[in-house]
Amino acid sequence: MPKIVDHDQRRVELVGATWRIIAERGLDGATMRDIAAEAGFANGALKPYFPTKDQLLDFAFEHIVAQTNARMAAATEGRTGLDALRAYCHEILPLDDERLSEARVAIAFWQKALRDPSKAAVHARSMEQWREALGGLLGAAGFRGAEAHDGARPAPAAGLDAAVGAIMNLVLGAQITATLSPAQHGPDALVAQLDCLLDGLLSGADA
Amino acid sequence: MPKIVDHDQRRVELVGATWRIIAERGLDGATMRDIAAEAGFANGALKPYFPTKDQLLDFAFEHIVAQTNARMAAATEGRTGLDALRAYCHEILPLDDERLSEARVAIAFWQKALRDPSKAAVHARSMEQWREALGGLLGAAGFRGAEAHDGARPAPAAGLDAAVGAIMNLVLGAQITATLSPAQHGPDALVAQLDCLLDGLLSGADA
Repeated sequence: MPKIVDHDQRRVELVGATWRIIAERGLDGATMRDIAAEAGFANGALKPYFPTKDQLLDFAFEHIVAQTNARMAAATEGRTGLDALRAYCHEILPLDDERLSEARVAIAFWQKALRDPSKAAVHARSMEQWREALGGLLGAAGFRGAEAHDGARPAPAAGLDAAVGAIMNLVLGAQITATLSPAQHGPDALVAQLDCLLDGLLSGADA
Repeated sequence: MPKIVDHDQRRVELVGATWRIIAERGLDGATMRDIAAEAGFANGALKPYFPTKDQLLDFAFEHIVAQTNARMAAATEGRTGLDALRAYCHEILPLDDERLSEARVAIAFWQKALRDPSKAAVHARSMEQWREALGGLLGAAGFRGAEAHDGARPAPAAGLDAAVGAIMNLVLGAQITATLSPAQHGPDALVAQLDCLLDGLLSGADA
């Protein structure tokens, strides 16, 4: 009987074995042959699943989003309020080698997505999930928006959308600062930077 | 008498004429010949000044930082406090087509800088200038750090470094969100997102 191969499953396995090599070597720095060799596969093993490096990059990006989502689910399990919101964001922040490698894949993907509408759509879809989750977590943490702020100063447009957008900017920006300016953006610094925003958003929140 | 050519000046002029083409076409999407042709130069005109596309990208990045710095100086002239801080940050946020083009060059540069220490050093040097300026502007806007926050909640590590790092993450992240998720990150949205952070940092500030 011929062996039954689940091609989707095989694709996921291959991406799981190769995404770190893309992160380390960069897209320009490695051929498909190099990537296969470093991951311990025969030359040509990747080709049937990813005809081009570009397709391998697409799957690598979706893979790192999926593994971030899995970590978020585990990290927020049993947590509530600000605690859950922070735990969720920490899985995006590049706080360890694994997440720094994810950041490198994301930056390579963004650069390609600037001129590739299908990649931009993949990015937008993933970010939309995070935005929705962040909106829910902010609400659950007691975010009340503009009216929570000091009335003596001009009212900030701190609606929920603005708050969610601010968090997205900050956690995506951290992918750049942590990889390119690590001295100012080590793990403790990144967490403190995030807290600057979250504490401000939730000052005056229903505790 | 032979014409005297100021080569540094000529290089600056060439970058000024070509950086937008890099932003629009991308590094992979255009040859040096294409870039020269689109900018209205003879084939080969760029080569003596930028032997490779990679060097043209280095100069393009330094050019957009220099033009951002010039805008910052003009925008903050005569402003003080939070007003000056906001005006400074707005010149980094991709609020118009010019700044969106700058964002595209920055993203291309970051991707290369991940594996090129000399590019990473250029990036770090530019960002260090901004961090220093932001620290001064935050202080002048009355930033008082952790003690400004509500004592009933765990004290955030909102020292000046954390506040500056948070702003850097947010404004750099905006380069990605505004180019790749424009629906949620138009100009008004980006300004409101920035205000979420600045208002939180300066709540309780010496007004």
